[in-house]
Amino acid sequence: MLVKYDLESIAATVKKADLLTRGNSMWRYAEWLPVSDPASVVSLGEGGTPLLRMDAMQRRYGVQGVYVKREEQNPTGSFKARGFAAAVSLLKEKGVAKAAVPSNGNAASALAAYAARAGMEAVVIVPGDCPGMIIEECIRYGAHTYQVDGLIHDAGRIIEDGKQEQGWFNAGTLREPGRVEGKKTMGLEIAEQLGWKLPDVIIYPTGGGSGIIGLWKAFQELREMNWIEGELPRLVSVQEAGCQPIVDALQAGSAGEGAVASENATSSPTGLRVPKPPDGNLVVSIIRETGGTAVAVSKEDIRRAQTELGLQGISSSPEGAAAWAGFARLREAGWIKPAETAVVFNTSHADKYIDWIPRVAPAVVRTYNDLKPLYESRRRG
Amino acid sequence: MLVKYDLESIAATVKKADLLTRGNSMWRYAEWLPVSDPASVVSLGEGGTPLLRMDAMQRRYGVQGVYVKREEQNPTGSFKARGFAAAVSLLKEKGVAKAAVPSNGNAASALAAYAARAGMEAVVIVPGDCPGMIIEECIRYGAHTYQVDGLIHDAGRIIEDGKQEQGWFNAGTLREPGRVEGKKTMGLEIAEQLGWKLPDVIIYPTGGGSGIIGLWKAFQELREMNWIEGELPRLVSVQEAGCQPIVDALQAGSAGEGAVASENATSSPTGLRVPKPPDGNLVVSIIRETGGTAVAVSKEDIRRAQTELGLQGISSSPEGAAAWAGFARLREAGWIKPAETAVVFNTSHADKYIDWIPRVAPAVVRTYNDLKPLYESRRRG
Repeated sequence: MLVKYDLESIAATVKKADLLTRGNSMWRYAEWLPVSDPASVVSLGEGGTPLLRMDAMQRRYGVQGVYVKREEQNPTGSFKARGFAAAVSLLKEKGVAKAAVPSNGNAASALAAYAARAGMEAVVIVPGDCPGMIIEECIRYGAHTYQVDGLIHDAGRIIEDGKQEQGWFNAGTLREPGRVEGKKTMGLEIAEQLGWKLPDVIIYPTGGGSGIIGLWKAFQELREMNWIEGELPRLVSVQEAGCQPIVDALQAGSAGEGAVASENATSSPTGLRVPKPPDGNLVVSIIRETGGTAVAVSKEDIRRAQTELGLQGISSSPEGAAAWAGFARLREAGWIKPAETAVVFNTSHADKYIDWIPRVAPAVVRTYNDLKPLYESRRRG
Repeated sequence: MLVKYDLESIAATVKKADLLTRGNSMWRYAEWLPVSDPASVVSLGEGGTPLLRMDAMQRRYGVQGVYVKREEQNPTGSFKARGFAAAVSLLKEKGVAKAAVPSNGNAASALAAYAARAGMEAVVIVPGDCPGMIIEECIRYGAHTYQVDGLIHDAGRIIEDGKQEQGWFNAGTLREPGRVEGKKTMGLEIAEQLGWKLPDVIIYPTGGGSGIIGLWKAFQELREMNWIEGELPRLVSVQEAGCQPIVDALQAGSAGEGAVASENATSSPTGLRVPKPPDGNLVVSIIRETGGTAVAVSKEDIRRAQTELGLQGISSSPEGAAAWAGFARLREAGWIKPAETAVVFNTSHADKYIDWIPRVAPAVVRTYNDLKPLYESRRRG
């Protein structure tokens, strides 16, 4: 599923300075994206998010550099916009009419928005305890929205069971190449924003893990083109205790020796709660290869980090706050050295996660057979 | 209060192409901003928001061009970030330790965030029916947050009454030069994003009206520098029926002949509800000068526009949706011609305006004397 580019030919045609004359969206990196026809691009203004130096936090934590990558400033308020801009563009090129996604929330609202922009039908299935604001967002963008009595992989099963009968394209994690390629632009952007000098450490909140895959792929491609030099950043996954398959797999040394999975997830209903990441083994091996690590933080750590970022003027999602808590822990443990520089990803903003019940609650389903009559009757109008 | 620049000297030193080598925030227009020392800049990554062409809406409304300027992608989720980035930078330069603002919501959360970033104290006072999410945001950023039993001008009176005793700087609309200058970057940015060719019409939702003033000032400056040619855009104010002082003043032809004001505001609790805009006369005369107009739309118009934008993948605030409703009305009436191009401002996103009660409700006060003991006791901790 990882797209191969002719990097030699890109290096021969594009110079770093050429990028400056392009717009600020992620499509400035068009040569590194799999959408060949510019007319197929489905864009809502994604990418080009700020990389904010946290001067006061550098002093507090005694570190040379710490930045927050403000992915909450994307359309739909999360980093998921990048992946779905690329994925929906590819689906449009292929003439797909209906796309479906199992999601903890932000992927659902991103598919909903990009499908709306493309004039495509979207079907999204989220857990029963998905934050109400995100459900409202999916409905606002016109998606067929359902809740599953279960977790994200249960939602995925419903889509797999119904896709043939309904003609849905399953746009779930690693089901198609666009989402990883779109997320890859986060890595390209960090490199450009830091003057093509990468940080020592990148801290990323991890559910399915395609963010880690995207960052790693960006740096591989830039290195192959000789646009960057030296060591790649150590990539760090942060998860919430109670659903930490990546952390567990790294500790157990089990990469490549079986599925990376957690049983009985007890963590909060956020993007971090992915008990069975579809490509967990790849994520674990990337982290190992870069000399990175994985950290599990508690709900209380997340709450404290959210407060700390808030008092710096930044609204962070629980996932982004978890990454910040991971930074604090690794700095305090000395794993991040005083002379190093770290980039921490804030993947969404706090507002989406408040305790609020959507005005029109979607139906809760267990199986495709539950969903089918509801969906078909709504489609008939 | 309007800052004068040596535009000849800017034109002599800066070329359009120079801007390309700068970052994407509003500070790429540093020469047009009143902050002289780069070390004083208080930034959270504001500006550089997408200008999104609405192809499907061009077809639906039969118009050459219609764009949405996505100001909701700013820090704090609204256009107010630009004004407060500039204002708080200036206050920091002056050594101000405590800033206060009367606000319908988004100005309060923007001051709160930028003051937090600057290590400054913020005091914000919003109406009793201010959306709960915005109140929560102010608290998250650490501002002293109060609700007034009244409207925005009642909040302003409390700040005026207390500012001497408490050492507050009143950062209300047109009390200092930074906010207009920051908003001016919206105009500079549109010009640059459209290749220095301005649209025929710009539609802006109007409360206090400093957005209109900022846009107008941007175009004046660019024209004086010969960076743009031809007619300036017709500027359009959109307000909600029930609080429409700008609309009324334009219809009555009263500009310059007394205060622009509405009595007994009955419109919704949004940024549009400013019964007594501090510089209403200037706003009205700018609209006249550009051949623009002002439109009052209903709650139902706003709801419909919000739905229409949502189904295009855009989350709009009631203010942004009001502007879109104004576009629809003016296009349908033929005031915007088929061969013309319009830019519509979406100033914030929908999530902030849901019906939700903040976890910790701030105290409701009527006068400075009500607020004083609460504030002083909280400051003592």
